[in-house]
Amino acid sequence: MITAVKDAWIITQDPRRRIIRGDVVIEGERIISVGEGYKGSADVEIDASGDIVMPGLINTHTHVAMSVMKGIADDMAFPDFLEKVFRTDSERTDRDIDIGTKIGCAEMIRSGTTTFVDLYYSEDVIAKATAEAGIRGVLCWCVLDEELTTQKGNPLKNCKRFCESSRDMRKIIPGVGLQGVYVCGEETCRGAKELSDEKDIPLTFHLSETRGEVNDHKKKTGRRPAEWLSDIGVLGKNSIAAHSAWLTMNEVRLMADAGMSVSSCPVSNMKLATGGVAPIPEFQKYGVNVTVGTDGSTTNNSLDMISEMKILGLLQKSSRWDPTVTKAQELLDFATVNAARAVGMQDSLGSVEVGKYADLVILDGKSPNIRPLLPENIISNVVYSSSPANVKTVICQGDTVLEEGRMRTMDEEDILSVSEDLWRSLCQR
Amino acid sequence: MITAVKDAWIITQDPRRRIIRGDVVIEGERIISVGEGYKGSADVEIDASGDIVMPGLINTHTHVAMSVMKGIADDMAFPDFLEKVFRTDSERTDRDIDIGTKIGCAEMIRSGTTTFVDLYYSEDVIAKATAEAGIRGVLCWCVLDEELTTQKGNPLKNCKRFCESSRDMRKIIPGVGLQGVYVCGEETCRGAKELSDEKDIPLTFHLSETRGEVNDHKKKTGRRPAEWLSDIGVLGKNSIAAHSAWLTMNEVRLMADAGMSVSSCPVSNMKLATGGVAPIPEFQKYGVNVTVGTDGSTTNNSLDMISEMKILGLLQKSSRWDPTVTKAQELLDFATVNAARAVGMQDSLGSVEVGKYADLVILDGKSPNIRPLLPENIISNVVYSSSPANVKTVICQGDTVLEEGRMRTMDEEDILSVSEDLWRSLCQR
Repeated sequence: MITAVKDAWIITQDPRRRIIRGDVVIEGERIISVGEGYKGSADVEIDASGDIVMPGLINTHTHVAMSVMKGIADDMAFPDFLEKVFRTDSERTDRDIDIGTKIGCAEMIRSGTTTFVDLYYSEDVIAKATAEAGIRGVLCWCVLDEELTTQKGNPLKNCKRFCESSRDMRKIIPGVGLQGVYVCGEETCRGAKELSDEKDIPLTFHLSETRGEVNDHKKKTGRRPAEWLSDIGVLGKNSIAAHSAWLTMNEVRLMADAGMSVSSCPVSNMKLATGGVAPIPEFQKYGVNVTVGTDGSTTNNSLDMISEMKILGLLQKSSRWDPTVTKAQELLDFATVNAARAVGMQDSLGSVEVGKYADLVILDGKSPNIRPLLPENIISNVVYSSSPANVKTVICQGDTVLEEGRMRTMDEEDILSVSEDLWRSLCQR
Repeated sequence: MITAVKDAWIITQDPRRRIIRGDVVIEGERIISVGEGYKGSADVEIDASGDIVMPGLINTHTHVAMSVMKGIADDMAFPDFLEKVFRTDSERTDRDIDIGTKIGCAEMIRSGTTTFVDLYYSEDVIAKATAEAGIRGVLCWCVLDEELTTQKGNPLKNCKRFCESSRDMRKIIPGVGLQGVYVCGEETCRGAKELSDEKDIPLTFHLSETRGEVNDHKKKTGRRPAEWLSDIGVLGKNSIAAHSAWLTMNEVRLMADAGMSVSSCPVSNMKLATGGVAPIPEFQKYGVNVTVGTDGSTTNNSLDMISEMKILGLLQKSSRWDPTVTKAQELLDFATVNAARAVGMQDSLGSVEVGKYADLVILDGKSPNIRPLLPENIISNVVYSSSPANVKTVICQGDTVLEEGRMRTMDEEDILSVSEDLWRSLCQR
């Protein structure tokens, strides 16, 4: 089937970052034409006259199933927060993980995200729910030392089993997760890296989110977390380090040498007030691949990548007293082309180019908050002025998941109707 | 006419901050019943089953007419930004101010704002456009030293004329503006204060937004701006000081003694990277009335008060390494009850209570990003999880201005269709 999205402002995110007025034509899962030049006919035409078409956003760090836990632990001291979330999170059922995932996917779809990187246990349940939602999940089963986990069985074996069972699922990319150096010894970390290398799949982990975590690790090993992970050979091109807020320049250089990516989570860091600010300009200078993540719904409490891009820029500018760092175009790059590279899909995702998967977001060009709209201010308008209210239609790998504001893949009311009971049973422990 | 909004979660913002499930009944311009208890019949019933009804948000600092200038000066060094905006802003026509105001009002309506405080010249043009949009404008004509202005005639006289000519306009509250101590000498400041006192109307001004402005004033007068304004008797209960980011504790105490309000503009301060952070907890401790403003579209670039509340909280928490400051309930208070007090309308605005103006926002309770939704997390969900996408219906002083996403008062397409030409003519100077 051929679908033509007609007469839009296309933010291509191609190597020249061209803005084109024209059509995007999709055949099956992929883009076959961008701009002018397509002479064939289309089975379906989407009138996007004056709208914006851009690549689906890629959220590189979340815990999607926690979407059912919104607002359980806000505005608390950090130790109280950890205790509350850990208590709630450790006894979840498959059903509430399924519902939590679907709520999170619905929220992501409605805010223009078509791919997310998840770090959690029970990724098999999350995979099924994500497939039903119709977006792409890079689902990294969380590995930690067996004696410290609430998972049944050995976490690394669970992860391996998931990677094998899910590898043929459409739009599901299995990956390996590590909770963090505070619960992952050397053997666990090496085992996770080996699995990631063997299958050439993403390896994601929390890194240096809090000062306490860095100090504790240094006390234990004599090395800071990123130094230690570098020493034992865990950092590599498949690595995505979430947070990465408390780092030295030496660690930044080690991370750059490894060819790895970071997922900065500014809202989570700010809301938990953990103090560190990810050194984004230094990552860029030394060549660490920078991406953005929302983190989960207990810390943010939103999965909205549009505001995450903006707030990442605001935090960098304000903390460095420099309005010229992390410009709008860079912020959009973090959430598209850079993120595609982070998950190893730079040839298939992150831009609107012929041959890539049709992962597209259409923003309503009739919305006053993004007008006037011209090629000169379109990137600014998307990053600094837009909101989920502008998201009209979302296509993932050729499938229309949101059409003019209507969810096509799931019965949202059905899912949401049980969410309050789950919140009570989960969160009032 | 009697309108009943049925079966909603009502965020009353009353003195007990009650959350009630029930109806809000409006007769004419005012609320006549909240919760249960209304036994009469209604001419119109709005089914808000499971939706959220809350007070219309109050944006206490903006320059609404600049909405047509989005994206003209982003990611620039601060002096370049000032030069660009000043050049663009100094030769505007009534027509582009009219269009800019309507775009801004449409954006504010669609993000749940029903009252805004504006600081600009040509407030007569802005008043007409705002009245057409149907929301409430507290319109403060900008006064500065006559020899420094691009206004025709004497700014204080212009302001006075506007205050007199507009005082009977429905939903328009005239006020007095001062640009800031850097262009307002003692006589100008005193004149503005006298006018505000004489008519008992708001007096708003930029205060200590940048470090340079503070240092320059100290060099010139030997006093920091708030000290100097206190010395010459300009601070009072009608004062609203925007930004207020570079202050000493002595200044905070002087401001508290004056019984005045501040409008914190976190996004603008962060994006311009002016370095200061408004001392919100100290304002609260000493009794300065804290409110929130978006600033204008060249600095933010959004008039969305929902994200402004959240980002105010994020900046405070992160800059102080304390997640317990500026809790969700306080952030909502800043944008409702505190803001109502700032504009002298605490008896008519800011909460959903019998006798107050019917300024109401209905948020769609079927949106996944604010579910699960329970009394226990409703304030968190509004402040930390919601977005303009959730805004369904907006009522201002009894008039429905947005109904299920449709603008009732203006032809948006008509207004927006000329906005690109205006941008080019204005912004490419």
